[in-house]
Amino acid sequence: MRYRIHADTVLTVDDAFHIFQPGQLTWEHGVIVSVGPQDSDASPVDQVINMAGGIVMPGFYNGHNHAAMTMLRGLADDSPFFEWLETHIWPREARLSAGDIYAGTLLAAVEMIKSGTVAFADMYFEMDAVARATELSGLRGWLCRGLIGNEDSDFAKLDQSIRFAQDWQSKASGRIVPMLGPHAPYTCSPDYLARVAQLAVENDLGIQIHLAESASEMEQMQQLYGKTPIGVAWEAGLFESRLVIAHGVHARPEDLPYLQGMSGGIVSCPISNAKLGNGIMPYAMLAGHGIPLGLGTDGAASTNSLDMFLEMKAMAWMQKLSQGRPEAFQARTALTMATRGTAEILGSPGGVLAPGRPADFIVVDGTHASMTPQIDAVSNVVYAATGADVLYTVVQGEILMAEGLLTTLDEKAITEEARNRLEHLLG
Amino acid sequence: MRYRIHADTVLTVDDAFHIFQPGQLTWEHGVIVSVGPQDSDASPVDQVINMAGGIVMPGFYNGHNHAAMTMLRGLADDSPFFEWLETHIWPREARLSAGDIYAGTLLAAVEMIKSGTVAFADMYFEMDAVARATELSGLRGWLCRGLIGNEDSDFAKLDQSIRFAQDWQSKASGRIVPMLGPHAPYTCSPDYLARVAQLAVENDLGIQIHLAESASEMEQMQQLYGKTPIGVAWEAGLFESRLVIAHGVHARPEDLPYLQGMSGGIVSCPISNAKLGNGIMPYAMLAGHGIPLGLGTDGAASTNSLDMFLEMKAMAWMQKLSQGRPEAFQARTALTMATRGTAEILGSPGGVLAPGRPADFIVVDGTHASMTPQIDAVSNVVYAATGADVLYTVVQGEILMAEGLLTTLDEKAITEEARNRLEHLLG
Repeated sequence: MRYRIHADTVLTVDDAFHIFQPGQLTWEHGVIVSVGPQDSDASPVDQVINMAGGIVMPGFYNGHNHAAMTMLRGLADDSPFFEWLETHIWPREARLSAGDIYAGTLLAAVEMIKSGTVAFADMYFEMDAVARATELSGLRGWLCRGLIGNEDSDFAKLDQSIRFAQDWQSKASGRIVPMLGPHAPYTCSPDYLARVAQLAVENDLGIQIHLAESASEMEQMQQLYGKTPIGVAWEAGLFESRLVIAHGVHARPEDLPYLQGMSGGIVSCPISNAKLGNGIMPYAMLAGHGIPLGLGTDGAASTNSLDMFLEMKAMAWMQKLSQGRPEAFQARTALTMATRGTAEILGSPGGVLAPGRPADFIVVDGTHASMTPQIDAVSNVVYAATGADVLYTVVQGEILMAEGLLTTLDEKAITEEARNRLEHLLG
Repeated sequence: MRYRIHADTVLTVDDAFHIFQPGQLTWEHGVIVSVGPQDSDASPVDQVINMAGGIVMPGFYNGHNHAAMTMLRGLADDSPFFEWLETHIWPREARLSAGDIYAGTLLAAVEMIKSGTVAFADMYFEMDAVARATELSGLRGWLCRGLIGNEDSDFAKLDQSIRFAQDWQSKASGRIVPMLGPHAPYTCSPDYLARVAQLAVENDLGIQIHLAESASEMEQMQQLYGKTPIGVAWEAGLFESRLVIAHGVHARPEDLPYLQGMSGGIVSCPISNAKLGNGIMPYAMLAGHGIPLGLGTDGAASTNSLDMFLEMKAMAWMQKLSQGRPEAFQARTALTMATRGTAEILGSPGGVLAPGRPADFIVVDGTHASMTPQIDAVSNVVYAATGADVLYTVVQGEILMAEGLLTTLDEKAITEEARNRLEHLLG
């Protein structure tokens, strides 16, 4: 089947940041055939979708998530950080069964599809359940088990991660990419990180890790190793594979030699970083040195929402704020980070609308009062739109949402299931 | 007609912050009759609305807006501030006719009603057009002409403001409250401000003004008068009437004696302040001294959205960020500022669900995946919801939106009219 969509605006996020008004996008077998002005492709198609007032753009790549934590959305919000984590989150996480995590990941998938996300990177546990939910949803997932590694017994969990990788590598039409997920340098010993680095190289796997998230982590790493967290990760050999660094709030000039030329990059989670009081990622320093930068939501227990439109807003607002100049950060940069930027960090050709790229895109409704007038479509998408404006979400050419209706998942059943499981989690 | 609404959750925002789960709200003749647990009122009613999964809460009071600037949404975003203002905004504002301002205010009204706002404070020009649009919309408006006052001829505009006040004081079922609107101490001379202060007292009018918004304003006031902007306003006598201060980003300890015990208060616009790089209002200092605090969006030309849910989020994120602690700012505080806090600053009994208060409320849909589970309804409303989750907006007992459908305004016609007027504005 070959499809074509016509819309008032097509935002490509390609090298020249082409915008076609009006424009068309044609796709077949999960891949983009052509994109351009309205009449730029006359080839016959099986189905045409006309979206007057619509904005076609790449779907979001959410570069850092703990999807199943939607089950704990809003739990003990606004508490002091360690009280929140140790008294509220960890005891509930200890109760999460594989079934809870499957249900929570489906809940997250509904929210992601509805708000225009096509791919997510996830670090959690019971990853078979996460992978099954991802497979069912139609989303792309870069999935890893979060590894705590301090004792000898923790090394055994690495075997499980390798087995998970072998199990899922070629399943779900290539939509699932297994990775290794050492949690952080304050929860994994240097020996453990080195073992992860070695296994990643041997098994050709990428790595996800939290680095330089909080001031207390910086202090602790300085005291223990006399290094920054990014320095500790380098020393352990993590930069020898694709490395997806979540946060990087406290990245420092001395980290730049490690970061320059790296495979992977830094995924900023501006809402989580603000809401937990951790700070603002030094965008200007990092971008100025060519470090690849992307965007993610972090888990819904801290961020409360998986809406990437909110992350783009938060990213732009906080950078302008921290630099004291409105011109310090541009809407196009936020859009690029949330799509192509994150896709490149994950090693995906997605996040760009161009021939030969994956047919991963969304359609945003530009007709509502809140999106009118449309003087600048990018500005409207970044600063005015929210996830509720998304009408279509398409992944690998498959329509996961059409006119707001989900095709792979049953929202009512999934929200009900999540509510039913709450009692045993909170009780 | 007496109405009753049943819902899973009723957030009263009253003194004890009562939350009824499930709860009911009964209203008649524009006033709340009762609010409480599900079966707390057995009096007969003419109509019952059952909102399973709904959250009933006070509608938002948007304490600072330039509504008609929706017409310029997204214009030259991310430009340096003075380039944006002088090269892009002012030349377009000079072209705005009364018809454009009427159309732009209607456009803003659609967006406000849809995202749960019941009342707004507005400073602009052609205020008859703004008042007519407000009257038609069913919203409440605290309306003033923005006054630039440096030359002798500017004093004549004060007469127009007084005439506007006399014309509209008793119209629109009391939904319109005229005020005086000296723009700022850097655009009005001390003599002019003193004259405004005198007229406000004589005519029993409140005042809206921008104060302590930017660092450059602080410097200029220091150089010209050796005072802070708030000190200049005090000196001119503006604190003798109800005073609605927009921004207050750079309020200082030496301003506290002026602010304590004032009638009115400070309306923070956190998104505008971040997006223009102006900074973060010192909430802790102001709240710690009992200064009344509210929330507003500022105009859509700088903020891009009139969604008060986004302002609550931005307020909380930025306060947590600036203080480096998640517990530094609570979701309940954001909700209070956006409803009751702003209403009190404006001198309105609204923003609280309690018997005898105005029947100004909204219903938020709590059933979607993005609002599931509902461990903490306040947390979900503040951190997870957006304007798109609003199902009902009720002002003075009149239903302005039911199940997402507007009753007073025609969104399609209004957005079309706005688009049609764009060419002559931008050309």
